[in-house]
Amino acid sequence: MSATNRQIRLAARPTGDVKAEDWEHRSAPVEEPGPGRFAGRTRFISLDPAMRGWLDDRPSYLPPVGIGEVMRAGSVIEVTASNHPDFQPGDHVVGTFGVQEYVVSDGKGVLRIDTSLAPPSTYLGALGMPGMTAYFGLLDVGALKDGETVVVSGAAGAVGTMAGQIAKAKGCRVIGIAGGPQKCALLVDELGFDAAIDYRAEDVRKALRQHAPDGIDVYFDNVGGGILDAALARLAMHGRVVICGAISQYNNSTPVEGPSNYLSLLVRRARMEGFVVFDYAKRFPQAAQDISAWIGTGRVKVKEHVVKGTVDDFPEVLQMLFRGENVGKLVLELA
Amino acid sequence: MSATNRQIRLAARPTGDVKAEDWEHRSAPVEEPGPGRFAGRTRFISLDPAMRGWLDDRPSYLPPVGIGEVMRAGSVIEVTASNHPDFQPGDHVVGTFGVQEYVVSDGKGVLRIDTSLAPPSTYLGALGMPGMTAYFGLLDVGALKDGETVVVSGAAGAVGTMAGQIAKAKGCRVIGIAGGPQKCALLVDELGFDAAIDYRAEDVRKALRQHAPDGIDVYFDNVGGGILDAALARLAMHGRVVICGAISQYNNSTPVEGPSNYLSLLVRRARMEGFVVFDYAKRFPQAAQDISAWIGTGRVKVKEHVVKGTVDDFPEVLQMLFRGENVGKLVLELA
Repeated sequence: MSATNRQIRLAARPTGDVKAEDWEHRSAPVEEPGPGRFAGRTRFISLDPAMRGWLDDRPSYLPPVGIGEVMRAGSVIEVTASNHPDFQPGDHVVGTFGVQEYVVSDGKGVLRIDTSLAPPSTYLGALGMPGMTAYFGLLDVGALKDGETVVVSGAAGAVGTMAGQIAKAKGCRVIGIAGGPQKCALLVDELGFDAAIDYRAEDVRKALRQHAPDGIDVYFDNVGGGILDAALARLAMHGRVVICGAISQYNNSTPVEGPSNYLSLLVRRARMEGFVVFDYAKRFPQAAQDISAWIGTGRVKVKEHVVKGTVDDFPEVLQMLFRGENVGKLVLELA
Repeated sequence: MSATNRQIRLAARPTGDVKAEDWEHRSAPVEEPGPGRFAGRTRFISLDPAMRGWLDDRPSYLPPVGIGEVMRAGSVIEVTASNHPDFQPGDHVVGTFGVQEYVVSDGKGVLRIDTSLAPPSTYLGALGMPGMTAYFGLLDVGALKDGETVVVSGAAGAVGTMAGQIAKAKGCRVIGIAGGPQKCALLVDELGFDAAIDYRAEDVRKALRQHAPDGIDVYFDNVGGGILDAALARLAMHGRVVICGAISQYNNSTPVEGPSNYLSLLVRRARMEGFVVFDYAKRFPQAAQDISAWIGTGRVKVKEHVVKGTVDDFPEVLQMLFRGENVGKLVLELA
């Protein structure tokens, strides 16, 4: 066991793309857990598009990561020593432990997971924040109804794969938008989407006209930009646009591209609504139960993109999200 | 009585600003009413920002006005002859009779008005579509609650004066945004708004920060563009943006400017929603009753901008809307 705790800290606020020099790779001493605390070793680190927003110094739903601070990240750790009554060595837990090899925690906001029900990484994906985000975004914010036409952008990502499959489980017609023929084939052939649009090769507006001839009832947006505009142009009457994210805009050094077709909301008596998944925390257990049941019956398939490496690989693995190189939930597994 | 019916017809689809040559001034024969129809003389013609949208050949909540057709407009006419059981000579009625001096109608979509309760022009403003738009936009779409902070743009216009006053009648704190010191003074001194922001002279973002320190609960948008963006940046948690119109964008020959700050909907768990007032037609009588009562007690003041002239003045009077020259409901009164 190493005597040092390798950590990734924020060295500078990035402008546009995050660069290698925006990160500091540091070796800190491994801490012992004090009274009421436990120590653990990081097994899986979650990589999320939202991380880009946490690096900017502007008001958001969470304070920005401070310069010099360990990068914020959700992770699964294995408890190695404990002075906390609720956690025992050998337990696997999820929490916001940051990008580092070793962790000491007082247990606040930490959840013990059952690795006999699902592999640890699934608690960062289908049964973690991406799954919860898809579930509450579609069902609560989107007020999804049986038989509606649903379009999901970023459809091959962690949230997108779940959103599309949950909509299918709810009896909807689902069209996914993703980049590249392999992702599109996966959506239709493996995950049961009714259609997929390759935004790199196709005219998204035309393709939506073809696949959603009667309009879009719920558009679940992970990307923003021109794809949001294309979806707005095809909203059905009383359509709902769920604003989950805008990955196409996160690395902009210019202002965010606003949706030029927003007046379609007026013509279509439609709404566009944002949400933050943490607001639904009290209802996570119910959502996890529903999702587990769908996984159990095979209606929902868990897609994970696991990269094995060390915490030092974090900056490079993060870039995969913005280059669209992951399929499903992107996770860094520490050896 | 003239033997000809002077009419304004659409000659060409305008690009950007509407120009004189986009209209045709024509003299048509005056028609006699056939069986089940009545004839009337136009007294007041309504001028509305929405008219600009009706000139464009693109899908909207109403079909575009056809080239060569009489320009669509709401108006008050006085019945002069009738073969219709529900309408008698001397009656005043409102309907979508178009920009012309004389009218023949089968009575569909026509409403008889009581000129002893309010002057005829009021049925085109406070008790007409602008009043209904303000009422349902705020109370239904905006889901306004007592004591909330409301911001109205285009606040000195037909809809804006009503929206602000209805919000005041509902016990809200109301900030109006308008162009020029006279309009701003009117809002505060005469109509009881809590504050007014002159967008031509002030930094709207800064002014909203000052006047809405705890954020905006309901933003009623008539203008779009940079003012919509400024309001999005100051939304309160669970704020509602009511998309009523976008007069700043209607004469664009370039694409509509999308709201760059739309991701504020996510951070603030807020929504942006459009509507079309005709959807609420069944509830117009209740709204008219409420508005009449507020007018009766002096809580709501009727602001009208009446220009006297002929139908030939219509094109020029319409421009007043886009130059921001009207205060309250703009109406053309025929001599």
